[in-house]
Amino acid sequence: MCHHCVIEGVKQSMLSRRDFFRGSVAAAGAVAIGATAAPQPLFAQASPPQKAEDLTHELWETFPTYFGAQQLFMDKKFDHAKDTFNLYEYRISEHTGTHIDAPLHFTADGKSVAELPVADLIAPLVVIDIKARAAENADAEVTPEDIDAWVSAHGPLPEGAIVAMNSGWSQHVATDRFRNVGEDKAMHFPGFHVEAIKKLLETSTKAIAVDTLSLDYGKSPDFIVHNTWLPAGRYGIEGIANLDAVPAAGATIVVGAPKVRGGTGGPARVFAFV
Amino acid sequence: MCHHCVIEGVKQSMLSRRDFFRGSVAAAGAVAIGATAAPQPLFAQASPPQKAEDLTHELWETFPTYFGAQQLFMDKKFDHAKDTFNLYEYRISEHTGTHIDAPLHFTADGKSVAELPVADLIAPLVVIDIKARAAENADAEVTPEDIDAWVSAHGPLPEGAIVAMNSGWSQHVATDRFRNVGEDKAMHFPGFHVEAIKKLLETSTKAIAVDTLSLDYGKSPDFIVHNTWLPAGRYGIEGIANLDAVPAAGATIVVGAPKVRGGTGGPARVFAFV
Repeated sequence: MCHHCVIEGVKQSMLSRRDFFRGSVAAAGAVAIGATAAPQPLFAQASPPQKAEDLTHELWETFPTYFGAQQLFMDKKFDHAKDTFNLYEYRISEHTGTHIDAPLHFTADGKSVAELPVADLIAPLVVIDIKARAAENADAEVTPEDIDAWVSAHGPLPEGAIVAMNSGWSQHVATDRFRNVGEDKAMHFPGFHVEAIKKLLETSTKAIAVDTLSLDYGKSPDFIVHNTWLPAGRYGIEGIANLDAVPAAGATIVVGAPKVRGGTGGPARVFAFV
Repeated sequence: MCHHCVIEGVKQSMLSRRDFFRGSVAAAGAVAIGATAAPQPLFAQASPPQKAEDLTHELWETFPTYFGAQQLFMDKKFDHAKDTFNLYEYRISEHTGTHIDAPLHFTADGKSVAELPVADLIAPLVVIDIKARAAENADAEVTPEDIDAWVSAHGPLPEGAIVAMNSGWSQHVATDRFRNVGEDKAMHFPGFHVEAIKKLLETSTKAIAVDTLSLDYGKSPDFIVHNTWLPAGRYGIEGIANLDAVPAAGATIVVGAPKVRGGTGGPARVFAFV
């Protein structure tokens, strides 16, 4: 099925699913993903957050990259000993380190990173833990069943959530295991399955996040997750860190996305408030 | 007086001032800047914040710069029509747009931007409004008296605050008025006076922020504010925006500083929670 067809199919599905929920949540007893219509408070918590967790990797010049080649080069233009201050100029790809994928990354004219509404950068954080499966199979994916399991344990997905995959991969960031190139020359790391993405497109989920190099799993030949999620106007966070420090439900994520006009994404500072 | 002497003098002053407050706040009836010793909650508010304000300028290639020359160059490496996705590589100075000055910017070996503790990136926001004075005099500076006036109106500076100058200058960002080069070839825009900085060094203030291109006012010949504040291990935010949207007291600022190893600063996404 072509990507356009996928999107059209998703749109139709969204419409029918919404109609379904609108009339019959209680009667149906269905898993009420996306059923909540009331506006949510800015913070998920009932009282002010007590703790901040940093979900951002430190970025260094040889931080692992999707394409394999170095993507950050630091050029010292001024030096304290000589000039009384230090200053670097960088050459950097937008898609380096803990970073944003804006809709414009995989569309002709979708929202740039600067156009993401502030309201979309602050959200209830949903953490889906597939660490055990990913430890056994580097090609593990977040499936619709994983979302169902989260809902069974924690209740309906919060309105306007950011849904993060915790595959345990962030621990590998400084090693070859992060890209994990196999004998088949393909990369092998976890990601979202497109069927999970279609399920999330039925909800008000604002963004998905992965603790790997790509929203798609490493061996994806076609960026199907990118091509399904981003053209729908949602965004992604790649290379998120430290998800073990936050609960599966109840935290609020604050995404310090860069605000570069026309940018397709870029390194971000991401916090969770618990 | 050499910068080292300034710092040593400030350290001595801090010690004696702290001793002073420890024993005699009530008796002295002094303006109790920095007198609070109790640890502060993460958020200034008693209830969860209801609103987020974006204190970040959009960044574009010809965003005004301190040195005058362009500091952001975007090179499109992949194009959606040809490659199925868009991606830019940037050449960018760390000190561009709404950005951080880390201690390393003006020290040989101070903290890099990646080394700023997360606890220093979330703080009570203190806004000192000098708009009326700056409208009449582009060389206006935040003075110790401005801090005293804030304290008289709002009470002691909160523990671990970030103190921002609202000079009204952010409205000029897209015009020549932002740099405001005079017939004398010097720039003319507001900043902090070093005496205000010395006063803040007696407190637990984590950072200062300005809505202009420099912590020092534009015509400063010697970066005295940079050279006093940053070597003391505190940091700065330059080019902050939208301060009119937040109250003088009571908001919490969240500074999405970049986390580049060895970086001297860099573009940040800055929010205030009200």
